Amino acid sequence: MTTASDDTLKKQFDFLLELDRLKSVVRQSRLADGSRRENSAEHSWHLAMFALVLSDHADAEVNAAHAAHLLLVHDIVEIDAGDAPIHARGIAKHELEAAESMAAERIFGLLPSAQAERFRNMWLEFEAGQTLEARFAKALDRLQPLLLNIAVGGGTWTDNGVTEHQVMERCGPSIEGGSVVLWHAAQELVRSHFNGRTSNRTDQL
Amino acid sequence: MTTASDDTLKKQFDFLLELDRLKSVVRQSRLADGSRRENSAEHSWHLAMFALVLSDHADAEVNAAHAAHLLLVHDIVEIDAGDAPIHARGIAKHELEAAESMAAERIFGLLPSAQAERFRNMWLEFEAGQTLEARFAKALDRLQPLLLNIAVGGGTWTDNGVTEHQVMERCGPSIEGGSVVLWHAAQELVRSHFNGRTSNRTDQL
Repeated sequence: MTTASDDTLKKQFDFLLELDRLKSVVRQSRLADGSRRENSAEHSWHLAMFALVLSDHADAEVNAAHAAHLLLVHDIVEIDAGDAPIHARGIAKHELEAAESMAAERIFGLLPSAQAERFRNMWLEFEAGQTLEARFAKALDRLQPLLLNIAVGGGTWTDNGVTEHQVMERCGPSIEGGSVVLWHAAQELVRSHFNGRTSNRTDQL
Repeated sequence: MTTASDDTLKKQFDFLLELDRLKSVVRQSRLADGSRRENSAEHSWHLAMFALVLSDHADAEVNAAHAAHLLLVHDIVEIDAGDAPIHARGIAKHELEAAESMAAERIFGLLPSAQAERFRNMWLEFEAGQTLEARFAKALDRLQPLLLNIAVGGGTWTDNGVTEHQVMERCGPSIEGGSVVLWHAAQELVRSHFNGRTSNRTDQL
């Protein structure tokens, strides 16, 4: 097959098959039932659902669909660059950024050029965290692992000896930067967790 | 916390944590590298990406975001009702439909009522397959496992002794119903696969 349209489809199919590898990038967070660690593909689905469900709580009116799309795309660079756990130490920020930029170039570059640019720009928008939707998306990207940690009774906080103060410090700016309402609720959950008043779910809200 | 707004948030957090269970619903399809079977959460992410990437190939102009949202939501009922493999036998259609309806009632019913109705309607729209977006979404839901089967050299077709004719018969109506272009390309890939001219990827396009 030699027409331009077929070449477009071949590139798109190759990109979509390459995306399959995100299902094998394992994150630190455990599933809510504690059975195993989460992968970045299912994490991205979960976050897109967070965006569709919680968009009314953003500080300003956000385009929920656009926030969801940023979240569908935000971890794709991990196919090459891997996941960088928030509580891990010793990862040089500029090295990670360089690896992620190269990954974006390669992976989105599998697409026809106009589409490649559109998807790479979505990833850059998320990373920059300047638009309303990117700020809201980044808030959700911090909120979801927080809820999973509480669901499993500590999770990566326990693994890494993370204190209540550190959780507030590491999650607060991102979550509050997208939604004061969500950060208020998350703070209550974190406080209750560390005070041992609850071990799971959201019963104390 | 007792305000209406907090009750809303509690319901939304409970729903979002319940969604986590979709990561443990295992489908028949294998990942493209053959390493394990796919779960319904990562499958839903993959399909949403299919919608964003391939929407120009729909027969009529579709709202790609809406198609992606239908795909994010379409398998949530499997949390209660399980996955129903296309090549399996002995599943009574009306029993499955009843189980899925009950699941939709329970799971979307965790949300505040207006939102519950909105999400249940998205699921119903997908199931009915009447709107342009639902038809396109259903096409992608057939196309993705087809590409994965070809990537692993047979997959569920080999598992179930499925012939080329049966693939055409079982996938054709859904894929062609949403995109003649995609079905044309898929047919070529299926023919090449069964003719043994290729064992993986999309190199023969």
